[in-house]
Amino acid sequence: MRIHFLFPRACSYLTKPRMRHASNRCRSFHCTVPIRSVELTKVRYPNLKRGPFSILGDADVQFFERLLSGAGRVLADASEIEGYNTDWLKTCRGSSELVLRPKTTEEVSAILNYCNTRRLAVVPQGGNTGLVGGSVPVFDEVVVSTQLLNKIISLDELSGTLVCQSGCVLGYMEEYIADYNLTIPLDLGAKGSCHIGGNIATNAGGVRLLRYGSLHGSILGLEAVLPNGEILDCMSTLRKDNTGYDLKQLFIGSEGTLGIVTAASVLCPQKPSAVSVAFLGCESFARVLDIYKEAKGMLAEILSAYEFLDEASVAVNKENLRMASPIGDFPFYILIETSGSNGDHDEEKLNTFLETMMSSGLVLDGTVVTETSKIKDIWSLRERVAEGLLHDGYCYKYDVSLPQAKFYDLVVDMRERLGTSVIRVVGYGHVGDGNLHLNMTSPTYSPEVMSDIEPFVYDWVSKYNGSISAEHGLGFKKRNFIYHSKSKSAVSLMQQLKRSIDPNGIMNPYKVLPEE
Amino acid sequence: MRIHFLFPRACSYLTKPRMRHASNRCRSFHCTVPIRSVELTKVRYPNLKRGPFSILGDADVQFFERLLSGAGRVLADASEIEGYNTDWLKTCRGSSELVLRPKTTEEVSAILNYCNTRRLAVVPQGGNTGLVGGSVPVFDEVVVSTQLLNKIISLDELSGTLVCQSGCVLGYMEEYIADYNLTIPLDLGAKGSCHIGGNIATNAGGVRLLRYGSLHGSILGLEAVLPNGEILDCMSTLRKDNTGYDLKQLFIGSEGTLGIVTAASVLCPQKPSAVSVAFLGCESFARVLDIYKEAKGMLAEILSAYEFLDEASVAVNKENLRMASPIGDFPFYILIETSGSNGDHDEEKLNTFLETMMSSGLVLDGTVVTETSKIKDIWSLRERVAEGLLHDGYCYKYDVSLPQAKFYDLVVDMRERLGTSVIRVVGYGHVGDGNLHLNMTSPTYSPEVMSDIEPFVYDWVSKYNGSISAEHGLGFKKRNFIYHSKSKSAVSLMQQLKRSIDPNGIMNPYKVLPEE
Repeated sequence: MRIHFLFPRACSYLTKPRMRHASNRCRSFHCTVPIRSVELTKVRYPNLKRGPFSILGDADVQFFERLLSGAGRVLADASEIEGYNTDWLKTCRGSSELVLRPKTTEEVSAILNYCNTRRLAVVPQGGNTGLVGGSVPVFDEVVVSTQLLNKIISLDELSGTLVCQSGCVLGYMEEYIADYNLTIPLDLGAKGSCHIGGNIATNAGGVRLLRYGSLHGSILGLEAVLPNGEILDCMSTLRKDNTGYDLKQLFIGSEGTLGIVTAASVLCPQKPSAVSVAFLGCESFARVLDIYKEAKGMLAEILSAYEFLDEASVAVNKENLRMASPIGDFPFYILIETSGSNGDHDEEKLNTFLETMMSSGLVLDGTVVTETSKIKDIWSLRERVAEGLLHDGYCYKYDVSLPQAKFYDLVVDMRERLGTSVIRVVGYGHVGDGNLHLNMTSPTYSPEVMSDIEPFVYDWVSKYNGSISAEHGLGFKKRNFIYHSKSKSAVSLMQQLKRSIDPNGIMNPYKVLPEE
Repeated sequence: MRIHFLFPRACSYLTKPRMRHASNRCRSFHCTVPIRSVELTKVRYPNLKRGPFSILGDADVQFFERLLSGAGRVLADASEIEGYNTDWLKTCRGSSELVLRPKTTEEVSAILNYCNTRRLAVVPQGGNTGLVGGSVPVFDEVVVSTQLLNKIISLDELSGTLVCQSGCVLGYMEEYIADYNLTIPLDLGAKGSCHIGGNIATNAGGVRLLRYGSLHGSILGLEAVLPNGEILDCMSTLRKDNTGYDLKQLFIGSEGTLGIVTAASVLCPQKPSAVSVAFLGCESFARVLDIYKEAKGMLAEILSAYEFLDEASVAVNKENLRMASPIGDFPFYILIETSGSNGDHDEEKLNTFLETMMSSGLVLDGTVVTETSKIKDIWSLRERVAEGLLHDGYCYKYDVSLPQAKFYDLVVDMRERLGTSVIRVVGYGHVGDGNLHLNMTSPTYSPEVMSDIEPFVYDWVSKYNGSISAEHGLGFKKRNFIYHSKSKSAVSLMQQLKRSIDPNGIMNPYKVLPEE
């Protein structure tokens, strides 16, 4: 048993990739599969019927060209829009013929007003990093991209309130406010590409939820354009505001089916001055939970992340990304991050915790780092598994919440069920949030493998009162499984609200709500 | 200048009053005004018209008596129900002739189904500690009390998820989970009486919001009965669940106008093992803000409350409650609470902070306590101001959010405006949340004083983009001022949702939404 303690002073926190500031856009992920080999969604799902929407015509395109003047604001060339038609996982491919790139809320309003009157279906798209096919067209929906809605509007340093347009890239926002000693309450692997508007629309969770809570608490206000083009102004920057129904909450997690978020105010916490990351090995998932319980007690207010990876996840890193683990081989790995205002205090707490864990035999080996570059390296082991899996070919991706005690059994059962029909079955995720990422891979998409996985996985989760989508949303791929996690009365009220707010059903059709 | 440091070890946290466990009910507040002298709301507001609801008849009462068998479940005797007709402030008095006390969700469902069919108006009532007349009848609405919906259903110790019925008293819940080393993420002066269902319905804020965030993050799931009697099951105990619209959010802060919350699951954080409270004096409100900025940086993750009182608030304690301040007389007082997992670390952080504040001259005097009884005493200075004000006679009560820089100017302007027409104008509240409690008192209710206060106070708040209700809600008293804080588009969507969910308008009429 060994453990490395590396505590240089005055470490600063920077896990995110550098980005090109000028454009406020970048892509940190690349998949090797050519887009044109991705099967069209309407072909893969032949029984799915296109909704009763109008067909885009020349007069429509001319209207949008008059509305959005300037180069690169109305894209209709097939080669320009193929990226907008295809999701990051290369599992869904739409047939849209038009991408619109508004710069202002008023332009979004004019677009939706026109589309609603003309009965043209619309799909809003942020960084297009979603994993459930929610941000790409299914048939020929018009894509409304938030790429040019990318301005920071204001920052109140004392209260930590950042107001910005919805197309701001999360990682860019983090860099922007770092100068003011603040941090963004949300952090996830896709931060180099994802837009805050997409994060809000999907209620993105990520690795800091354990510390700062969900976007339902961190988003203080938002502005959205309703399907009929009306601008809904809920742009509070106040921490408390109990004047009527909290409408913004309805848009957080509605995945673009009730309108398009155009701006938001985000409550940004104080940036921690000291950050440490420990990477530990242990013998079983039961130990992962035992250690979590101790970490909650001993690290308490400085615990900012508690993630786990199984052996198979670390093998993906090694085999597909040539990334080495900093410790030996173990059945399970834990990534613990602490962040606080006093490095000496945090170091003492973390040392005491690790010594207790080592001497009790719960932790078998581990390393602790506080240097920025080393912190980044260790986080990469966790954050790049999703990317590594794509190198196998096709990835069957599941993101579920389960009671912590049942958490890993799903991976074991799935591995046994699928046997050699897949390349691998891996499990990793956010232990502190009860959120498991379950992934299977095969060289190409296989309907047989898919039918072995679904609905088995959803039935399994439902049996233990879990959620079939913890943080990724339902999008296109999971909408018909909503009843595995939500009651009939709840889905019925959702449908009622959808009909009330979007009576023509133009906003992101075929998503979230089940086929009726 | 002096500062007292009192740090005995192993202090435990207990600021709440002891309660009678058997009944899970208690009242910590008492007002000296007799109920029958309180003017009926329908008399005080002669222009307000009763809605098109049915009149309660003998057959209705007989139906409810058959439904709710057992003593004390259907109250129709005038002397028994007068407390349910009158709010805690003794500013609103309804004329209801029937109080129903269901024990189960199914009973609530049967009640609402019947009332909806019969077009009988309903007002849900929890602990009746609201300050805006939201929980008492305006005319003759049937009161549905959650007093007997008072069972704890389950507790998951590892995840900290407590599931209970909506009539559980907040302070009782805190006592219940203290044995499991957990704490409730919500704390407020009315904890000895208020129900968790009422807290949820009003999105109660309180003194821990700074640390644990709002109920939009802490309530993991809830069950509600819709106006037509349908039971809406959103009872997740999962920390993450992105499967469809997050409907529970709509009920958090809807003040009983969309349905009755019957049960909830609450995410309970680890109970801090060390708590300290500092009570400080300073010379101006600008200094209160300067010190807050330093506290955010130096106390950071252990800062759990930052409250202020002005000189006039402390005078209320002295004159009306015979409570002495532990330090000398100053224009402004600050109450800082820290809570964490390591007493030595917290003490060091707090000492360093206070020494810096004293030597810079920002803090003029102060005392620090860690003993439970002394912590309780100091918190009482802040929490009992509301009670002390009632001893003056009538209290005009405002709860606003403002940008921190403008925060106290409203108190100064109001004091100048009202002059000697009131007994006093006092300001206190949650600096960290930008939430000011502004109170004026006079011997009895005076329409002249009221017309000097309103709409002046709302115009003032609106001018600085504040909220006219930070944490108390709009209820009956403030509903017509909603446009001072919310846009027309937002109010219009609220009205649309209300009509969709409660087409007959039976749920808590005359509340939240403005007169149309």
